[in-house]
Amino acid sequence: METRHAEHGCLFIIGGDEGAKARKRLLSRFVDLAGGSDKRFLLIDAASQTPEKMARPYHEALDELGVRDHRSLAVCCRADANDADIAAQAAEADGILMTGGDQKRLLAAIGGTALDQAIHAALKERGACIAGTSAGASAMSGHMLGGGHVELSPERGAVTLAAGLGLVQQVVIDQHFAQRQRLNRLLSVIAQNPWLQGAGIDENTALVVERGVGIEVVGEGSVTLVDGKDVISDIADIREGCTPQMLGVRLHLLPAGSCFMLPDAPAPRRISGDARKAPAVLTEFIHHLVKRNPIS
Amino acid sequence: METRHAEHGCLFIIGGDEGAKARKRLLSRFVDLAGGSDKRFLLIDAASQTPEKMARPYHEALDELGVRDHRSLAVCCRADANDADIAAQAAEADGILMTGGDQKRLLAAIGGTALDQAIHAALKERGACIAGTSAGASAMSGHMLGGGHVELSPERGAVTLAAGLGLVQQVVIDQHFAQRQRLNRLLSVIAQNPWLQGAGIDENTALVVERGVGIEVVGEGSVTLVDGKDVISDIADIREGCTPQMLGVRLHLLPAGSCFMLPDAPAPRRISGDARKAPAVLTEFIHHLVKRNPIS
Repeated sequence: METRHAEHGCLFIIGGDEGAKARKRLLSRFVDLAGGSDKRFLLIDAASQTPEKMARPYHEALDELGVRDHRSLAVCCRADANDADIAAQAAEADGILMTGGDQKRLLAAIGGTALDQAIHAALKERGACIAGTSAGASAMSGHMLGGGHVELSPERGAVTLAAGLGLVQQVVIDQHFAQRQRLNRLLSVIAQNPWLQGAGIDENTALVVERGVGIEVVGEGSVTLVDGKDVISDIADIREGCTPQMLGVRLHLLPAGSCFMLPDAPAPRRISGDARKAPAVLTEFIHHLVKRNPIS
Repeated sequence: METRHAEHGCLFIIGGDEGAKARKRLLSRFVDLAGGSDKRFLLIDAASQTPEKMARPYHEALDELGVRDHRSLAVCCRADANDADIAAQAAEADGILMTGGDQKRLLAAIGGTALDQAIHAALKERGACIAGTSAGASAMSGHMLGGGHVELSPERGAVTLAAGLGLVQQVVIDQHFAQRQRLNRLLSVIAQNPWLQGAGIDENTALVVERGVGIEVVGEGSVTLVDGKDVISDIADIREGCTPQMLGVRLHLLPAGSCFMLPDAPAPRRISGDARKAPAVLTEFIHHLVKRNPIS
């Protein structure tokens, strides 16, 4: 098994709703990204109100994949998340998976704690793979989708942001994307925050982010990237609940198999070696996804 | 009532599903666009298998709006549509409305006939307003959405084009857009035909196109414009039914109230006088919508 390199820490961002088969396939890649089945794996299930039930199928899948060292971190509250032993377990993990539930519940428990710092340290200093599915995926954003639902059109004020873990800083992650028709939700965020970018991940699909290198899409669906950098919008002038005019949204659809690296990146170690150099229209977006940030 | 000007012929492209109230409100604008309630109005209901039933509520609404001269053109087949008297009625109409049904049925009956030519002549030579709702809206495209349905993602080969009336030449019109989640359908077309542009019109919403001048959105929803001109796609290399990678799609969302004119256009006579000069990112799209074409 290839040795992990600290500089190639990676994220594995899953769009949720894995059936047993899809879960095993995705977790197989997660295990590879973390360095193999002999490595140390942790589950963080604090996003869920029923954490044991939520974590069980992931432990079963890891068992089936031959992983021996996997456990759930016992984190119910901020006191747990500030416990030195808990934090040390995370800092020493090779693969950390945050389950679904409610990303606000997760952040309320671990945001800014010793555990939060340890997750970043594992990524930065040990090249760990940090994975999240559903709520655990959204939680990776610095500006995290807090909630809100829109029906047919984007709306001003309908979708809220909250402070997330900041494993990616300028990209707002949404999940269950095609299945729950969430493009309008992401557009609502981008209209208000055009310097942020949106990444919508379909169910049973994952976005692999190799730090400093590039991205790959794996699984059954697609990842939709929404870039509002050049958007002209009237959002500041309309009332809450109204639909903003949005001119010049850029949208990229990356089905599974898509794999791009930054033009000046070192050779990929985590994403596929078949990665193509990203065309100019994608470069800035990928740069935002793969760059190190103030914390990690 | 202001005199119509031949050079200001217009299109009134409705996204379908009007309830009585929305229909009356939209048709009120249609009547204005055609020059007022004392003008001549025709309904073309040949898209429908039950044309009389389909046309009735539109006749009722026109009655309520004080229009005295309105009738359905008796067109069941191409022989009818090539009848000189039928064609003359269309050429002399001030407002023509094509109802819903199936746009392929409509084109099979009238495409390329004397009636088709007369519709173009009314628009071009007399400044008439040509309206269409649902199938009648899609039928206005030169490259007309023929059918096809995609679920969660765009797909190669899932959506077919057919020859339409060509009242707009480079823009593919779709309707019931937000309500039936048809963005992926339009993206499927754009992936294969990136030099075409897509316009998706929500229900109870209309896109007003003033020839040579600009566009306005009226009603309850939005018009979504999809511009594939700069798209990088792998559609030629994937199998039928697979999802194409699409980089650099441009998307514009125009809620009701949006009103743009070309920077060098004459003063609007049909769209709102409050029309703003279109920003550069919209100019080419609007140019395609408002320009005269080889037929009219």
